[in-house]
Amino acid sequence: MRTVIGIDLGGTSIKAGLVDDTGRLLRKNSMPTRVACSQETIVCDMAQLACQLLQEENLSLGDVVAVGVGAPGTPDEAGGTLIYANNLPFQDVPIRAILKEALGLPVFVDNDANVAALAESMVGATQKARHSVLITLGTGVGSGVIIDRKIYRGFNQAASEIGHILIQADGEPCTCGRRGCFEVYASATALIRETRRAAEANPQSLLQGLIDENKGLVDGRTAFEAMRAGDPVASQVVDVYTTMIAEGLASVINVLMPDMIAIGGGISHEGDALLIPVREKTIPKAYLGHGVAKPQLVLATLGNDAGMIGAALMALGHLDQGRGA
Amino acid sequence: MRTVIGIDLGGTSIKAGLVDDTGRLLRKNSMPTRVACSQETIVCDMAQLACQLLQEENLSLGDVVAVGVGAPGTPDEAGGTLIYANNLPFQDVPIRAILKEALGLPVFVDNDANVAALAESMVGATQKARHSVLITLGTGVGSGVIIDRKIYRGFNQAASEIGHILIQADGEPCTCGRRGCFEVYASATALIRETRRAAEANPQSLLQGLIDENKGLVDGRTAFEAMRAGDPVASQVVDVYTTMIAEGLASVINVLMPDMIAIGGGISHEGDALLIPVREKTIPKAYLGHGVAKPQLVLATLGNDAGMIGAALMALGHLDQGRGA
Repeated sequence: MRTVIGIDLGGTSIKAGLVDDTGRLLRKNSMPTRVACSQETIVCDMAQLACQLLQEENLSLGDVVAVGVGAPGTPDEAGGTLIYANNLPFQDVPIRAILKEALGLPVFVDNDANVAALAESMVGATQKARHSVLITLGTGVGSGVIIDRKIYRGFNQAASEIGHILIQADGEPCTCGRRGCFEVYASATALIRETRRAAEANPQSLLQGLIDENKGLVDGRTAFEAMRAGDPVASQVVDVYTTMIAEGLASVINVLMPDMIAIGGGISHEGDALLIPVREKTIPKAYLGHGVAKPQLVLATLGNDAGMIGAALMALGHLDQGRGA
Repeated sequence: MRTVIGIDLGGTSIKAGLVDDTGRLLRKNSMPTRVACSQETIVCDMAQLACQLLQEENLSLGDVVAVGVGAPGTPDEAGGTLIYANNLPFQDVPIRAILKEALGLPVFVDNDANVAALAESMVGATQKARHSVLITLGTGVGSGVIIDRKIYRGFNQAASEIGHILIQADGEPCTCGRRGCFEVYASATALIRETRRAAEANPQSLLQGLIDENKGLVDGRTAFEAMRAGDPVASQVVDVYTTMIAEGLASVINVLMPDMIAIGGGISHEGDALLIPVREKTIPKAYLGHGVAKPQLVLATLGNDAGMIGAALMALGHLDQGRGA
């Protein structure tokens, strides 16, 4: 049994996990990401967190075989440097070099959504699929694509930004500079925006009442909660939201035709209230001829652990292929 | 040197070509597709055309090693049956069984756009790419995806219907039943529709004058021609058209991140007048972080021969992998 350290570097926290080669998470730990500090400091924090984790398990660096890092951005082809990051002050950060000096272990870096998709495909929701996609509905819309049971990275390691496929030409503005991206309609941020709009337009609604009760606070659960309490205004918000998710997933199917699509991220905690309408709306929108097998839509199962587990499994995969690190 | 028969089955014609194992087209032939006849008759026509081709070259069936068929629809996994076809009266047609009985050769069936993309990637515009996409702008928008230099088919052989990714939720109606598909904005049919609309709205325009000269006839060249003659109305039509193509291609890049995208089909004969604006508009719309390599957009080079050449190369590929037929 080999043990690997999987690190999930996020905009708000760094998570580190000790993972065995069957993908089991043995122990985990986390700390805030010090975004105001230099990129080197953040990478040193990652090393520190990994060491703490080992100490807590009474292990030494010699007991683990590699470190895998999932980060929000684009790694170089060798998986050693983060060329670009979305929400972090990172540009051309040699994560491998810094961590290797600190820990003396092989280090592999990949995109965070890619490794989460790998985790779901190896030990989570999409294990049965040869080709699968993980879509996470959170602050943004993340995605990872698995083809032939391997991470698909595109020619420049920057593939699978499904949050930025088009849903509506000239639609709502996106943080990426384009208008009408999937993310602008399918993220938790989008759901919150539409929940607020609907409540403002319907001040007598149960939805607005619920928001008042919560002292003006709206999150990704608000519309679902008001819908469950029988509010037609909230039902309409959720209906439009699941339709937009279906529009995006149908486009994904029409390009990639995966066996399975798993839906993760904060909003996926709504479970069947999300999954069932999305599934029912997606399949008829996809281009599937008569008699042609249909992809399956499921909920992701690994939650916030997917990044750590996937980072570890990604590193193991590289080791097993004899890739240098 | 091995020789293969490549057949391109279309809604209006059947094309057959004799192709060598370097992808060179030695001779070709065609006949109308008798769409009013039974599916068996159409497949027999394919066999007939293949035999004619051999006779014209003074060859016998023993001189060729296989037959490849590209057809508009979804083959089964074994590549022997066309499960579903878009524009033909085909459902579960055992093309392999019928052709094998007629010709006594190994037969492999695949999607027409897939094999055209394979041809471009092996002997055409995208030879340098590991991952590439062919988009054809014709009556509809066809597409084929090549990953790791092989046809990407998805889990059910129905992948890469890029013509049916979304551009505009609730947009113009598409033949597939959905609204706002890429095809409804980027096909020649779409360009013709918009050319007519613009001319009707601007009866004094040079564009309308050109249409009158052509006795009311509008085709995919009309707007480009009037634009070249200096008409601002036509320029605007072409500008919107190339913007919509760019919107779709940016989504393709955001999912697949291919090294290269080749543009083919009738409209691609406009050359740089099409390619340059599409390229300039696509790259800024795609989600590409600072320092990340950009995909290349090019014109397809094989024209109408891509289907025959690709069908032949697809069959050779299967033979070389020892797949039964």
